[in-house]
Amino acid sequence: MPDLFDSSDSIRSGKPLKYARSVTFSEPLHLERGGRLPQVTVAFETYGRLNARRDNAVLICHALSGDSHVARHDDADDPGWWDILIGPGKGIDTDRYFVICPNSLGGCRGSTGPNGINPETGRRYGTDFPVITVGDIVETQRRLLDQLGIERLRAVVGGSLGGHTALAWATRHPGRVAGAVALATSPRLTSQALAFDVVGRNAILSDPEYKGGDFYEQGQGPVVGLAIARMLGHITYLSREAMTQKFDAERFQPRSVQTQFETKFSVGSYLAYQGDRFGERFDPNSYLTLTMAIDLFDLGDTKEQLAAAFRASQCRWLMMSFTSDWLFPPFQTQEMVDALLAEGKPVSSCNIATDCGHDAFLLPNQVHLYGEMIRAFLANLEDEPGAAGILPVQSQDHTGATGILPVQSSSTGNMPVAPDEPSAVAPDEPSAGINPAARFEETAAASASNIFHHHRLDYETILGLIPADSSILDLGCGSGELLARLRERGHRRIIGVELDEQAILACMRRGLDVVQADLNRGLPAFTDGQFDFVVLSQTLQTVLDVPRVLGDMLRVGRRAIVSFPNFAYKKHRRQLAEEGRTPRSLALNFPWYDTPNVRFLSIVDFEEFCGKFGFHILEQIALDTEADVQVFDDPNLNADVAIAVLGR
Amino acid sequence: MPDLFDSSDSIRSGKPLKYARSVTFSEPLHLERGGRLPQVTVAFETYGRLNARRDNAVLICHALSGDSHVARHDDADDPGWWDILIGPGKGIDTDRYFVICPNSLGGCRGSTGPNGINPETGRRYGTDFPVITVGDIVETQRRLLDQLGIERLRAVVGGSLGGHTALAWATRHPGRVAGAVALATSPRLTSQALAFDVVGRNAILSDPEYKGGDFYEQGQGPVVGLAIARMLGHITYLSREAMTQKFDAERFQPRSVQTQFETKFSVGSYLAYQGDRFGERFDPNSYLTLTMAIDLFDLGDTKEQLAAAFRASQCRWLMMSFTSDWLFPPFQTQEMVDALLAEGKPVSSCNIATDCGHDAFLLPNQVHLYGEMIRAFLANLEDEPGAAGILPVQSQDHTGATGILPVQSSSTGNMPVAPDEPSAVAPDEPSAGINPAARFEETAAASASNIFHHHRLDYETILGLIPADSSILDLGCGSGELLARLRERGHRRIIGVELDEQAILACMRRGLDVVQADLNRGLPAFTDGQFDFVVLSQTLQTVLDVPRVLGDMLRVGRRAIVSFPNFAYKKHRRQLAEEGRTPRSLALNFPWYDTPNVRFLSIVDFEEFCGKFGFHILEQIALDTEADVQVFDDPNLNADVAIAVLGR
Repeated sequence: MPDLFDSSDSIRSGKPLKYARSVTFSEPLHLERGGRLPQVTVAFETYGRLNARRDNAVLICHALSGDSHVARHDDADDPGWWDILIGPGKGIDTDRYFVICPNSLGGCRGSTGPNGINPETGRRYGTDFPVITVGDIVETQRRLLDQLGIERLRAVVGGSLGGHTALAWATRHPGRVAGAVALATSPRLTSQALAFDVVGRNAILSDPEYKGGDFYEQGQGPVVGLAIARMLGHITYLSREAMTQKFDAERFQPRSVQTQFETKFSVGSYLAYQGDRFGERFDPNSYLTLTMAIDLFDLGDTKEQLAAAFRASQCRWLMMSFTSDWLFPPFQTQEMVDALLAEGKPVSSCNIATDCGHDAFLLPNQVHLYGEMIRAFLANLEDEPGAAGILPVQSQDHTGATGILPVQSSSTGNMPVAPDEPSAVAPDEPSAGINPAARFEETAAASASNIFHHHRLDYETILGLIPADSSILDLGCGSGELLARLRERGHRRIIGVELDEQAILACMRRGLDVVQADLNRGLPAFTDGQFDFVVLSQTLQTVLDVPRVLGDMLRVGRRAIVSFPNFAYKKHRRQLAEEGRTPRSLALNFPWYDTPNVRFLSIVDFEEFCGKFGFHILEQIALDTEADVQVFDDPNLNADVAIAVLGR
Repeated sequence: MPDLFDSSDSIRSGKPLKYARSVTFSEPLHLERGGRLPQVTVAFETYGRLNARRDNAVLICHALSGDSHVARHDDADDPGWWDILIGPGKGIDTDRYFVICPNSLGGCRGSTGPNGINPETGRRYGTDFPVITVGDIVETQRRLLDQLGIERLRAVVGGSLGGHTALAWATRHPGRVAGAVALATSPRLTSQALAFDVVGRNAILSDPEYKGGDFYEQGQGPVVGLAIARMLGHITYLSREAMTQKFDAERFQPRSVQTQFETKFSVGSYLAYQGDRFGERFDPNSYLTLTMAIDLFDLGDTKEQLAAAFRASQCRWLMMSFTSDWLFPPFQTQEMVDALLAEGKPVSSCNIATDCGHDAFLLPNQVHLYGEMIRAFLANLEDEPGAAGILPVQSQDHTGATGILPVQSSSTGNMPVAPDEPSAVAPDEPSAGINPAARFEETAAASASNIFHHHRLDYETILGLIPADSSILDLGCGSGELLARLRERGHRRIIGVELDEQAILACMRRGLDVVQADLNRGLPAFTDGQFDFVVLSQTLQTVLDVPRVLGDMLRVGRRAIVSFPNFAYKKHRRQLAEEGRTPRSLALNFPWYDTPNVRFLSIVDFEEFCGKFGFHILEQIALDTEADVQVFDDPNLNADVAIAVLGR
C-alpha cells in the first residue's frame, strides 16, 4: 500500500532554510491594486554557476506552499521540493544552468509577507499587509534579477501558482525571457477552483483565533481554520483515482494521529495530519494573501482576451498539463496553447497521462516525461558556453546582516560548461493510440525491406511540392521525420501536431515545436490562413470525420497536402475480386480486424468527394510505393498511394 | 444569465411543513452500530390514493438536506423538492400511485433526530444522539409502512442518500419491494467524497459554538461551521461546467449579500448565501449524524462483495447516473449494475448526459429522460387497479396529538385508477453516436422500399437460430426490435445493451430490460456463460476491437450469433474491380467518409479470423437481402449479409 501520508507536501518542514540568502530593496514597491510596501526583502537560493555571458539563468517560481528551497544543495542538505527535476544531470541540470528560486512576495519563508515587520510601524504587518498580485510577485523577482546582474533569463519555470508567475514573467517582460515553461496552471482559475479558495479563506477568517488578522502577539493564531483550508486543498491536489488508491483498501483503519480533528477514516487521519502539519510551518495571513493573488490572476476568459495577453511575448513556450488534474484542468492549458498558436508564437505542449492529479508536477511518477521535455526544451533555447564566476552581488539575509553570496558547495563548482547542442535525437519511437503517422512509420519499420525507400519516396514527393521558406503545419507528425527534413531545408515556421507523448518528446529532442492534439477534434487552435501548407501524411484514412479535418486544413492553410492509400490499387482489386478477401498491401498493411485505418477510399472516390465538398485538387501525384516509382498511367488502378495538393 | 442563486436547495426553507403528519413508535429502536433510541417518531407526507389492494405505494427517500415535503399538495402549497417528478400526470404520477415521503431518522424536520427531545432525559439529544446507519433509517420507514398497512411497495425511489436508502430497502426487505429506482448514488462513497464530508464535519466540530454538541440552550450553535460545510457541499453538488456557466462571466461582480463571509467574487456571494440560508433551517447535529450515516454506508468495494450485497434482492432495478456527477461518479452506478447483471437480476440503467453535476437528479434539465424512464419503469411493474379508500391508520403528529391521516386535497382524490398497461411503445428512434443497430435500422428506414423485408429476413433468420426459452443478450439492441420479437415468442431472460439514451427509453417503454454500455469497452458486466445466446446484429463492422468483443460474447454466452455485411459480395467486387470505387450497397449503405462502419470483412476473412482466434463456426447462413433470399451457392460471392453461430 502506498504511504498514507506521502504527498508533495510531506517533505516540507518549518525549519530555517540554511542556504537561503536575501536581498532587501529599500525603494517602496507600489502595488498593482493600490497601496505600497515601504521596502521589500526577497529570500532566494541558487544552484549551479552563472556563466560569463550571464545567460544561463533559470528562474524557478514556487506554488502556494513552496519556498526558496527547491532542491538540496548537497547530499547532507534537506530535501528540496523539486529535487526530482533540479540538480546535477537532472531535467534542469545545475551543471549547465544557474538556477534561482526566490520565496514569493507575500510568503512566509524569508521574503516580505504579512508576518514580516512593517518598518513604518515596527510591528508585523498582519492585516496591514496589502492585497498583492502575481504581477507584484514578478516585480520583486525582477528587482532580484537586476541585483544579480541578470538581464535575460534562459527560462522561467513554474507549476500552479508558479505557473501563473511564469506566465506573468513572459508576458510582462518579453525581452527578458528566452523560454517559459508552465506546468499544471491556467490563465485564471475555474470558478470551481476559485470556490475552494473562498471556502478555505472563510475557514481561516471565521476562526475566532484569527482576531482580525493581528494574532501574532496573542495566542496560536487561526491554526484550526488554516488546517481546514489545507485539508480542503489536499483533496483538490489529488485525483479521485489517487485517493482511491491511497485510502479505499483501508478506509476504516485510520492511522493513529495526535490531532483534534476527526480520524474515523483513513482519509480523515491523512487530512488531519496534513492540516496540523501545515499549521506548524505556514502563516495564515500568507495563505490568505497568496490564495487571493491566485484568485485575482486573470489573463482573460475569451479566446480574444487570451490571444491579446500572449501577443507581446517573445519567448518559446512549453506548456504541460496532467490528465487527472481537476484543479487546473488540461483544457485550460489547451486554451493558452490555442492562444499562442493563434498568435503564431513558438509553443510545444503535452497533456501528460497520469492519475496523480494536480500534484503530478511535483511527483516522480511522470518526471521521465515532463522532466525530459523540459530538458529538451531548455537545450533548444539559444545558449552559449560561459565561464563560471563569483556573483558580485551585495545581499543581506532577512535578519539584516550583510554577506556575500557564497559559491555553493554543489558538486558542479568548477566543471566546464558543456557546449550546447540539442540532446541526441531519440530513434523514432512508435506511437500508441491513434497516432496514425507514427503507426504508419511503425508498420513501415516492421515490414518489408524496401519500406525505407517507400517511406522516403512518400516524403520526398511531399517535400518536392513545398516551395522554400513556406510555413508548414504537419498533422500527425509522429516523431518529426518530415518536419526535420523541412527544417534542414531551411523552413522557419514549421510546427507539428501529434497525440503520442513519446513521439512529442522525440520531436522536442529534435528541436521541433509540437503541440498535442487529437485530429478527430478538429484544429480549433489555429486561425484562418495561418500556414502556407498543412500536411496530412498517410493519416486521412484513420480520421473519422474526414470532411471536418480537410475543411479545417483548408481553413488554416492556403494549401493542403494529403497523402492516402488508394483502395482501388490493382492489387487490392485483385484480392477482393479473385480471392474474395479484404485487401492488404504495403500501403494497407494491417489485418481487417486490427488496423488504425477506418476509412477506405480510392483516388476516384477522393476526387468525387473533393468535388462534392468544394475542395479543389490543384495537383495530384500517384505513386507505386512497392515499385518505388511515380505512376502516370491510370493512377486509380496502378497507384497504391496518392498525394494531392488542395486549395479552396 | 442563469440565476446566481438558483440551486436544488434554494427552494427549501425552514418554515413548518403544514401537510406533514407523524407517527410515534414507542418500541425502542436498537441501532446497528449499538445503542438504542427509546422511541422514534417518523414525520411523513403522502400524495394520491392507496388502492384497495394496497399495492400502488411508492416510497420516496430524500437526500441529506431534504424532508417529507417532496411535492406540493395543491397549487397554493409551498414548492416540494421534487415537484418536477412527482404529481398528477408527472413521472411518478400521483393519479396512479400512492406516494409516501418520510423525513429520515436523524433529520431535523419532524422525525426523531439530535434536536428532538430524549424522553429519558426530557432534554434534546444533542451529543447523546447515537451513530445511526442507513439501515436504521430503513427500519424506521419499515415501521411506518407497517403502520400504514402497506406490505409491499410498488417501488422505492431515491437519489444520493435517498439512493442509498433505496438500495438498503431492496436488499434488506426483498419481499417488500417490487421495483427499486436509485439515482446519482453509489455502493459507498469514493474516498474523495468521503474526504469532503470529513472536512465539513471538522468545520462544525471545531466551531467554538459547537460546545461539544449541546448548543441548543446556549447561543446560536455552530452556524459558521455548518455554513462552511454547506459551502463545500454546494461545490460538490455542481459540476465544473455548471459553475463556469453560473459564475465565470460575472466573476468579479458578486451579488450583495448580508453575510459575515467573503463576498469578493460572484461565486463567493453564492456560497455565502447558501451557507447562511442552510444555518437558518438545518440542525448541525443532524448534518453530523446524516453525513456519518452516508460515510458508513458500504455495500462493498469489490465485484464479489457487491454481487453478494445484491444477491437477495427480488425486485426489478432502475439505476441512473449523470455524466457530470463527480460526487457520485457514474462508474459507481456501473459497478452496481455490473453486480446485478452478474447475479442475473433484472436491471435497466442509463448514464444520462448532463452538465448539471450531482444536482442533476433534482433539476428539470434532464427530467424528460430520467422522469420518463421512471414512468416507464413503474408502468412495467406488476400492478392492479384498486379502489381508493381512507387510510385507517392511527397517527400522531410529533406534538403527540392524535389524528386521522387526512385525504389529501390533491386533485386526484376520486379519479378511477387506470388499468395498467405498459405505456404506448414509442416508434423506433434512430440512435446517435455509435449505436450501430439503430444506425442500421435508421439506414434501413431511410432507404429502398424492400428494406422492411430485408430487415425482417435478417431478424427472422436470427430468430430461427434461437431455440424457445433460451436466454438472450442482444448487443446494440437499438430500440428493442429484436428483443420485442423474442419476448413475444415467450423468452423470459432477455436483456439488451445499448448506448443511446432515446433508444434505451424506447426499450423501457416496451417493458424491456436494457443497460447502457459501449461495446468497445467490452462486456465486463457479464459473467461467464450467463446466456444461452449473445447476439451482435449488423454491429460487428462498427466495433474497433473485434477479437475482444467476440471473445467476450463467447465468454458470456454459450453461443454467439453474429451478422455482418459481406465485403466480398459480388456487387462490391464489381464496384471496386470495374469502377475503382469503394463499395456501397444496401448492407453497406454509407459513403466512405461518413459511416459507422470501421471494419470491412468478407465471409472468407471472417472464417480465417475465427480459425486464428479459436472461435468455432457452428452454423452459417448467408443472405442476399437485396433479393430477400437465402444464399446457398458461393456465399462469399453471392451474399451481402452473413449470419454465423459461434461456439468455443
